[in-house]
Amino acid sequence: MPHDEVASVSAALGKLVARSGWADVAAHGHEAKRSILNFFATALGSAHDPAVTTALNVLTPFNSSPTSAIIGRTERLDALGAAFVNAISANLLDYDDTHLDTIIHPTAPVAAPLLATAEARGISGRDVLTAFILGVEVECRIGNSVSPKHYSRGWHITSTCGIFGAAAACAKLLGLSEVQIVHAIGIAASQSAGIVENLPSAAKNVSVGNAARHGLFSALLAQGGYAAAPHAIEGPLGWARAMGDEPDLAKLTGGLGESWEIVKNTYKPYPAGIVFHAVIDACLKLRRQLADGIDDIESVTVQGSQLLLDRGDRAVASERDARVSIHHSAACGLLLGKAGVREFSQAVVFEPAVVRFRDKVRAQLDASLPDGAALVTVRTGSGRIFRETVMSARGSLADPLSDADIENKLRECIHIDGNSCDADKVIEAVWRLEQFPDVAGLMKASRGERP
Amino acid sequence: MPHDEVASVSAALGKLVARSGWADVAAHGHEAKRSILNFFATALGSAHDPAVTTALNVLTPFNSSPTSAIIGRTERLDALGAAFVNAISANLLDYDDTHLDTIIHPTAPVAAPLLATAEARGISGRDVLTAFILGVEVECRIGNSVSPKHYSRGWHITSTCGIFGAAAACAKLLGLSEVQIVHAIGIAASQSAGIVENLPSAAKNVSVGNAARHGLFSALLAQGGYAAAPHAIEGPLGWARAMGDEPDLAKLTGGLGESWEIVKNTYKPYPAGIVFHAVIDACLKLRRQLADGIDDIESVTVQGSQLLLDRGDRAVASERDARVSIHHSAACGLLLGKAGVREFSQAVVFEPAVVRFRDKVRAQLDASLPDGAALVTVRTGSGRIFRETVMSARGSLADPLSDADIENKLRECIHIDGNSCDADKVIEAVWRLEQFPDVAGLMKASRGERP
Repeated sequence: MPHDEVASVSAALGKLVARSGWADVAAHGHEAKRSILNFFATALGSAHDPAVTTALNVLTPFNSSPTSAIIGRTERLDALGAAFVNAISANLLDYDDTHLDTIIHPTAPVAAPLLATAEARGISGRDVLTAFILGVEVECRIGNSVSPKHYSRGWHITSTCGIFGAAAACAKLLGLSEVQIVHAIGIAASQSAGIVENLPSAAKNVSVGNAARHGLFSALLAQGGYAAAPHAIEGPLGWARAMGDEPDLAKLTGGLGESWEIVKNTYKPYPAGIVFHAVIDACLKLRRQLADGIDDIESVTVQGSQLLLDRGDRAVASERDARVSIHHSAACGLLLGKAGVREFSQAVVFEPAVVRFRDKVRAQLDASLPDGAALVTVRTGSGRIFRETVMSARGSLADPLSDADIENKLRECIHIDGNSCDADKVIEAVWRLEQFPDVAGLMKASRGERP
Repeated sequence: MPHDEVASVSAALGKLVARSGWADVAAHGHEAKRSILNFFATALGSAHDPAVTTALNVLTPFNSSPTSAIIGRTERLDALGAAFVNAISANLLDYDDTHLDTIIHPTAPVAAPLLATAEARGISGRDVLTAFILGVEVECRIGNSVSPKHYSRGWHITSTCGIFGAAAACAKLLGLSEVQIVHAIGIAASQSAGIVENLPSAAKNVSVGNAARHGLFSALLAQGGYAAAPHAIEGPLGWARAMGDEPDLAKLTGGLGESWEIVKNTYKPYPAGIVFHAVIDACLKLRRQLADGIDDIESVTVQGSQLLLDRGDRAVASERDARVSIHHSAACGLLLGKAGVREFSQAVVFEPAVVRFRDKVRAQLDASLPDGAALVTVRTGSGRIFRETVMSARGSLADPLSDADIENKLRECIHIDGNSCDADKVIEAVWRLEQFPDVAGLMKASRGERP
């Protein structure tokens, strides 16, 4: 079907965003709050990472007025700057949420500009939640329409699609008209960027921060009168085709307002690549079976799909390697009995005992296992064999984290790097977000101070 | 050759930028000054366009300190903001310069952040010129390596490659180390964006402004310690391949420091699509032959290559159409005897006499003519026939604008919209740019005031 015979994608998405209110999305309010609680957890966990500090230092001389909190820190920036920095900290370790169909981390680019803007302008928690759910919808639908080739071709989909969610959400929050919302989404198409090649470097953080900042900027420009081409996303010289894809229009606009992407959001229990979570789960279970026999482990065999082997059968030369390592995942589960942020830190990753343990681990293909599953076999020096299979890892849609799990993740993350802030206040403010006339209390509670 | 067997493109380009000084590029100083003079001309001409005013209005609440001039206006912004706005005004009408091999408009994204930064920090004209020539080199070489498919696939190459020029130039201007310059170029790869589909809208201006702003931002982040992947541009999941191209490495790094792209820069005498310039030239010549016979014209036949017909055989429904119309180009040359900014304004484009004249014009394929040439035949009511062929339009490399032509273009542009500033001062300051210890005088002279 030629593009000019179909309704514009921006128009259809803009219509959903403009015409939906809290009543239309309230059923997903709790999932939205779980996403936002998880966002605060990971942002607090990375608030003092050098990448965050550098971003803050670079932007501070260009800051207008300190209207918006930098999560986990004492500094404040204007809304554009805070959107950039908070999206970086929330996504830094890829410990944030995952929309499994696309591997988008949906919340960092959308929540960061929403909260920064709502704080600066005194906008209610209910309006933030409404805009957030709609933004995630736009972001993930556009991602669905070009997956999986978009990512495999080299586009960092959290960055490239996150900006659309940020633009739609901020346009909604700022009360733009339907036509303006449509233009905001189209303007975002001209700012969408971010490549996979740069993921092992700080340049990755730039495209994630930009997705948040530029989404807000798109909305501000549309509010000021800027327009975009009607078929900016799906046109013959538009975003999707320039990026190499024939967009799937059914995934973009089919069932809009009926099915919602936020229900597919997932939260990680471990700051590791998501395909390694089943390995960690299986090893944690084996540790309980082995009890005092850990020191007697002679070998560990991890079996999984080709995807698991492709991603994770590697030597560990850095913390980043550890987060995508079958060998280190096994060490966390069996030797350390824990797989939190600390267990993936440089200090722990290169502890001699941990290095020695990784050497006992080998990876093996089991093509009968689906992606995301793992079978781990432990052989002890005394010849005993223990075996555990995990088909659906903790945190997956089949075995989601509980609300309490996410609360505990936040409590644990806060104290990384000796940071401190009042976890109870943040948690309570998120769970009651739709009741607050503004987000000032939440943002104030999330500002951290080193003790 | 697998990518990891070749030197990184960022490293090779970064080495050129880091190790070249004024002595290495001074031979091209005059061409750089012609480019910058042309930049001021077009920026002054569009300084009060609504798209510029809106950009300024949106950024003003986010401005830190007014360190840098907005060309042609009384307002000032910080360097990031001024880079964004001045790149927009310089490129707004596509009346700025053209690197014909790529159709990149090289100067807007590179000069805007350089001048804004140099003004804010008191950096010399010579350093600006050095950085400018090196930035244009990086920008156009990266463009060469992916042309022509990059543009035809939907990427607005001035935006997508302009950011690399801006990043390299700003990194040089700020005195970054070679390693930091390499990272600045790689960070730019994660911010490169802008689509052709949006060209008929203000969203186009956003990607051009971003190229300038984000290039500077890339340099500032690299200065602060941010890194990029070594093969961000040419790697398997890098910028060129994500955007759909197998990059031509010879064009990226072959003969670096020996041949220079700035010598191929061209300047437009008319604010119209470049393929229409030969039509206008032929019609201006015919007008002189016809003398008093203009009112007697019965028909005008414009012949040219398929490219000319594809681009320009269209009904004129807007000013934007007029700038890419064979029919309006002929009307400018024959009826109006001029093809300046005013002749492409709404008031003139829809004058009844102009509309009637366009109806007399028809386009016809002459496959024997090269792209960029035109053959125009006029038939009068009294049966006389006049014919003129132009093979190389004014402003092309074969028939470049003189320095005086560019000065006159600037003088004409200043007065659009009733703006005013001292043309003589701007012109003198550009021609003497390498002599000034800072660019304050130039930037002050370029600030306009409506009378």
